[in-house]
Amino acid sequence: MADSSHFLHSPTKPFRAEPNLKADEILKQMEHISFQGRNLAKAYRTWKRILNEDVLIFLGVAGALSAGGLRLLIAQIIANRWIDCVVSTGANLYHDLHETRGRHHYIGDASADDSLLQKAHVDRVYDTYANEDEFIDNDNWIANYVTTLEARPYTSREFLFKLGKHLWDETGNEGILTSAYRANVPIFCPAIADSSIGMGLSQGRHLKPDVGYIDVIGDVIESTNLVIRRRRTASIVLGGGTPKNFINQASVQAEFYCPEINGHQYALQIVTDVPHYGGASGSSLSEAQSWGKLSSNADRVTVQADATLALPLLVSGLVSTNSQRKSEAIPCFDLSSPIMSIEGIPFPKGRYEEHR
Amino acid sequence: MADSSHFLHSPTKPFRAEPNLKADEILKQMEHISFQGRNLAKAYRTWKRILNEDVLIFLGVAGALSAGGLRLLIAQIIANRWIDCVVSTGANLYHDLHETRGRHHYIGDASADDSLLQKAHVDRVYDTYANEDEFIDNDNWIANYVTTLEARPYTSREFLFKLGKHLWDETGNEGILTSAYRANVPIFCPAIADSSIGMGLSQGRHLKPDVGYIDVIGDVIESTNLVIRRRRTASIVLGGGTPKNFINQASVQAEFYCPEINGHQYALQIVTDVPHYGGASGSSLSEAQSWGKLSSNADRVTVQADATLALPLLVSGLVSTNSQRKSEAIPCFDLSSPIMSIEGIPFPKGRYEEHR
Amino acid sequence: MADSSHFLHSPTKPFRAEPNLKADEILKQMEHISFQGRNLAKAYRTWKRILNEDVLIFLGVAGALSAGGLRLLIAQIIANRWIDCVVSTGANLYHDLHETRGRHHYIGDASADDSLLQKAHVDRVYDTYANEDEFIDNDNWIANYVTTLEARPYTSREFLFKLGKHLWDETGNEGILTSAYRANVPIFCPAIADSSIGMGLSQGRHLKPDVGYIDVIGDVIESTNLVIRRRRTASIVLGGGTPKNFINQASVQAEFYCPEINGHQYALQIVTDVPHYGGASGSSLSEAQSWGKLSSNADRVTVQADATLALPLLVSGLVSTNSQRKSEAIPCFDLSSPIMSIEGIPFPKGRYEEHR
Amino acid sequence: MADSSHFLHSPTKPFRAEPNLKADEILKQMEHISFQGRNLAKAYRTWKRILNEDVLIFLGVAGALSAGGLRLLIAQIIANRWIDCVVSTGANLYHDLHETRGRHHYIGDASADDSLLQKAHVDRVYDTYANEDEFIDNDNWIANYVTTLEARPYTSREFLFKLGKHLWDETGNEGILTSAYRANVPIFCPAIADSSIGMGLSQGRHLKPDVGYIDVIGDVIESTNLVIRRRRTASIVLGGGTPKNFINQASVQAEFYCPEINGHQYALQIVTDVPHYGGASGSSLSEAQSWGKLSSNADRVTVQADATLALPLLVSGLVSTNSQRKSEAIPCFDLSSPIMSIEGIPFPKGRYEEHR
Repeated sequence: MADSSHFLHSPTKPFRAEPNLKADEILKQMEHISFQGRNLAKAYRTWKRILNEDVLIFLGVAGALSAGGLRLLIAQIIANRWIDCVVSTGANLYHDLHETRGRHHYIGDASADDSLLQKAHVDRVYDTYANEDEFIDNDNWIANYVTTLEARPYTSREFLFKLGKHLWDETGNEGILTSAYRANVPIFCPAIADSSIGMGLSQGRHLKPDVGYIDVIGDVIESTNLVIRRRRTASIVLGGGTPKNFINQASVQAEFYCPEINGHQYALQIVTDVPHYGGASGSSLSEAQSWGKLSSNADRVTVQADATLALPLLVSGLVSTNSQRKSEAIPCFDLSSPIMSIEGIPFPKGRYEEHR
Repeated sequence: MADSSHFLHSPTKPFRAEPNLKADEILKQMEHISFQGRNLAKAYRTWKRILNEDVLIFLGVAGALSAGGLRLLIAQIIANRWIDCVVSTGANLYHDLHETRGRHHYIGDASADDSLLQKAHVDRVYDTYANEDEFIDNDNWIANYVTTLEARPYTSREFLFKLGKHLWDETGNEGILTSAYRANVPIFCPAIADSSIGMGLSQGRHLKPDVGYIDVIGDVIESTNLVIRRRRTASIVLGGGTPKNFINQASVQAEFYCPEINGHQYALQIVTDVPHYGGASGSSLSEAQSWGKLSSNADRVTVQADATLALPLLVSGLVSTNSQRKSEAIPCFDLSSPIMSIEGIPFPKGRYEEHR
Repeated sequence: MADSSHFLHSPTKPFRAEPNLKADEILKQMEHISFQGRNLAKAYRTWKRILNEDVLIFLGVAGALSAGGLRLLIAQIIANRWIDCVVSTGANLYHDLHETRGRHHYIGDASADDSLLQKAHVDRVYDTYANEDEFIDNDNWIANYVTTLEARPYTSREFLFKLGKHLWDETGNEGILTSAYRANVPIFCPAIADSSIGMGLSQGRHLKPDVGYIDVIGDVIESTNLVIRRRRTASIVLGGGTPKNFINQASVQAEFYCPEINGHQYALQIVTDVPHYGGASGSSLSEAQSWGKLSSNADRVTVQADATLALPLLVSGLVSTNSQRKSEAIPCFDLSSPIMSIEGIPFPKGRYEEHR
Repeated sequence: MADSSHFLHSPTKPFRAEPNLKADEILKQMEHISFQGRNLAKAYRTWKRILNEDVLIFLGVAGALSAGGLRLLIAQIIANRWIDCVVSTGANLYHDLHETRGRHHYIGDASADDSLLQKAHVDRVYDTYANEDEFIDNDNWIANYVTTLEARPYTSREFLFKLGKHLWDETGNEGILTSAYRANVPIFCPAIADSSIGMGLSQGRHLKPDVGYIDVIGDVIESTNLVIRRRRTASIVLGGGTPKNFINQASVQAEFYCPEINGHQYALQIVTDVPHYGGASGSSLSEAQSWGKLSSNADRVTVQADATLALPLLVSGLVSTNSQRKSEAIPCFDLSSPIMSIEGIPFPKGRYEEHR
């Protein structure tokens, strides 16, 4: 008979609520319980470890996180350089821009009469509302900005850096786009066409021929070149969607041109989707290893939870313990031109940086 | 056109992580964000309000909460008399007993080879392990205790009170059963047959004829009489399962004999199941109103989350703010005999207390 | 390098819709696709295989299946003796009884105003309604029947057999309870207290002292003795809940008294719950192997789907191919008395049948 | 008291399995049961109705449907012109291309050792495998094709039409891309950068400067102009993701330039994601009404199910009843050039067609 002691060596410890527990103390206790509580604690501990490693850290942002009230947490993550590169859906950047421009989302009712809301020009995101007329104003604001651009394709990375600058210059407000601009953190938005930012871009072209071209294929090349340059990478993903896959394909694509790259070294995801229907959003991090998206020895943590529950605790824990990034690990980007550079060395133009 | 300002009056506020946030401060900020984060904050605020109301508070306990490391949180809830009556699955009481008897659950691996575990006598609960031989010892311990009982039916409430006493006398350890015994809080376990406690009871009968009868129909009557006596009631449910419905049916049944009762006044639930497949575990609290399980003006909060994520934060918040129950609202039970009593007044024997 | 051909030998084939495909033809094609479609096809094929094996087949019934319109499918499964023993929630039996008594469930609206429904005495189960006054009439009907019983404990198995007979005698209508009565198939309802049947039993006791005792611990012993007698067993579970675990614990308990039993040989489940929160309802069939609930070489199929989608296709497939149970495998029960018997040999009274 | 008969007029009817039920007969019975079974039947009936309406029908394709064995069903839907325009993720088109090129997906194991798979160059999609070396060959095939394109931006619509033609010319095999090419049905892929097709495009540019530009903002304009031209539209969505939102934003954007457009007239979705986390994939069709994505009187059906379970039955039902599209409703497209046209009338270049 096999020996149970081989398996039974680390007892769990029941969580005990004590007065004045801080976020990090809650997370430390949660490491000793089970299921998603433990997973969140592992995500916390792993992120802290990653901060001290020589890795380039991607952050994926999907789901209604900005509309859901998490945009300043994401801005804090960026400003602290706890990550190096953001991949986001368009909606999260748009809802961020909405609030950075001084507008609000509102506490609403998930069982509202949507016909009434339509008549009142109120847009609903589950239990949260926004003013549709203000959204239209955002769209026009973006469209007008787009008419000031050159008549050439921009990668989403270049466009969003400029948009962040424009937003910062105009508002001076903290947010995802403005923090990324100020911290020189690139944002890729591979599905930018599928968002109100994409709509704004298209309206810009309607106003002025030949503007509003986004070179999303260029984004594929740039994001891959990032991996080729830095070799060791980590993926931290909130939600699934295009950001999760885009971060993963960057390492798959990198291996094509640089065979010794074989997947991200670390992967954290906070998702609500599940693996058993086959979709990429819910896919397990183990499955990602079969593709070489992750290294076969990658540290992996999946937290099955709504980010509005998990992220406040997680980031509060990181803040409470004064988490610092190993400064030598932080790459220095120049994002202001069509060709981005790291540490002053530009990427090749429209080409993959091949095996050195 | 309808006026958007009718709907847009309470802006959300993005969560901002600050150093040394305590549980209650995290929850207070979460009240202003969206989705399940907001719902958890509403659950916290509502529970605090309930503590100051003249209501009898039921707590439902389903899912692998004890195995998952939440048994001391539940014991704290009981010891603080933040609730008055527990309805639990058998498994949660059994896994509680396991640890109260000094044994452990262990940190395991959700993708383990279960054939190997079987050979090693290791039982797996998702990512958590236990020693099967220790479980068999628990079963024998229960069976031996059962042989000391009288040859008559016990309600699960009476049996579990005595079991809690026996466990406390033998171990002096804190846990759900022992805390409920010490705080004179009744525990109902309507599906006790579907658990290792039920298995232990049956093994007791195998050892000694005519013992191990549990009168679960008597539990229906007692739990209903509780509602009839106190009229104003609240339901706090962790998971779904038999506890959720049993608490709800108590108010439906009470109305049968006391028509002015028409449902619990408050209902909180932390669940992972969803409404759209029709099952009771995932059913919405609104649906419960159609049945009269809840009052049509009941305050209702559903948090869609794993309790291992939600409960540590929620209870830590209650502890941090030194939440106290309004003392006059706390009923004084006598649970030591076949007929329970409140404030010294026994329930009728085997009958519903009818309309006064 | 490992050889991909080791893994890549059975190509999938895309589903092609052809005119007049019958249920079994649809299922046969689904065997060659992926994800839950394939799983349903595997469940179909495995069930057909089980029908030809010398195994005792348990059927677990949880979730709102009767209210959801699946009661005649379950009755057909029973009448065809595609299973030998049912374990059900109380609600499924109650909603079955409701229709067998000639009443209906109604097409409703999942987003109805539940306060209005409450006022109109309409009970909602997601998108389905029922008349609450008719439910009260059912409760009274059960209570009156209960007053005709002897003042002694009945196992749920004995009680439900008699209730099925009474219902058949009175209505002559097909349903779960009446089909099980007529086919001599035992029904266990371990959580009977947590249902309107339990409420009816309690109301019977209110009317007449000392009736309405259900010996659910006796059910534990009987269901285990079934496994000890037949040794080779299969578990087919719709939903999770108490039926899933009760069927599983029968084989764990059987091993206690008969060590060469080590788990069900086959396990199928159609569930919507998921494993990663640790609850038993969603737990994987692999996890069940660690406990010895299933044999370590058991055939296992999990279909993640609403039974209202999956069961019509599955049972229509079984019917279309004229699936027949191997007649020698069908046990002959006597269920009419406190002690049940198989093939004329009664179980021991209140004891486990031990190792032979 | 409100009258229950106001709510209780359409009884459900339990499903009864009969020999040789065909897909459409199964669906007809399912209309009378509950939950997701009923919803699937409503989706079937609604789609049949839409076929006879003067509406332009969008089909959204997300999730691993092609890898999952549904690509020929989708090809049949296209070939029968049961829809007019496809919006797809890149992965579904890529996995379609893989099989159209004569390669396979394989039946695999969801609990495989992914490190071994990685070593064997086997990529896993839940329980399905593919040969990574064949994927690399696909990528090269796409890249080589891309080098034959002109050095100018192509909308994804134009590019995918040409790719479908190239694939048809080379293989003569049925599939999504080839059927759409042959039926003159446009395919939009707004997140094309986030897929192996995007990777292939980028590799094409690596081989030959200045090719591989995809004008996804042009796709926004074209898809919107489709709505402006046809006014009455329907949305049928498999999965969520970018296709769901892209189809919805087309009607929102159309209203901007043509105010009498106010949302799709019909909306069907088969999804596994849920609304309560706020993400667009799981969002309710009611919520979509608040935004004007759907008309406030739109017929809406959500089926919560894995498409591999639901689509084979649904499409087999449509085929069995010889469902025909009202021929006058079918638009005639020219998709071969940078500017698409309907009924011979081209769209404006890079501009929205405004209010007529």
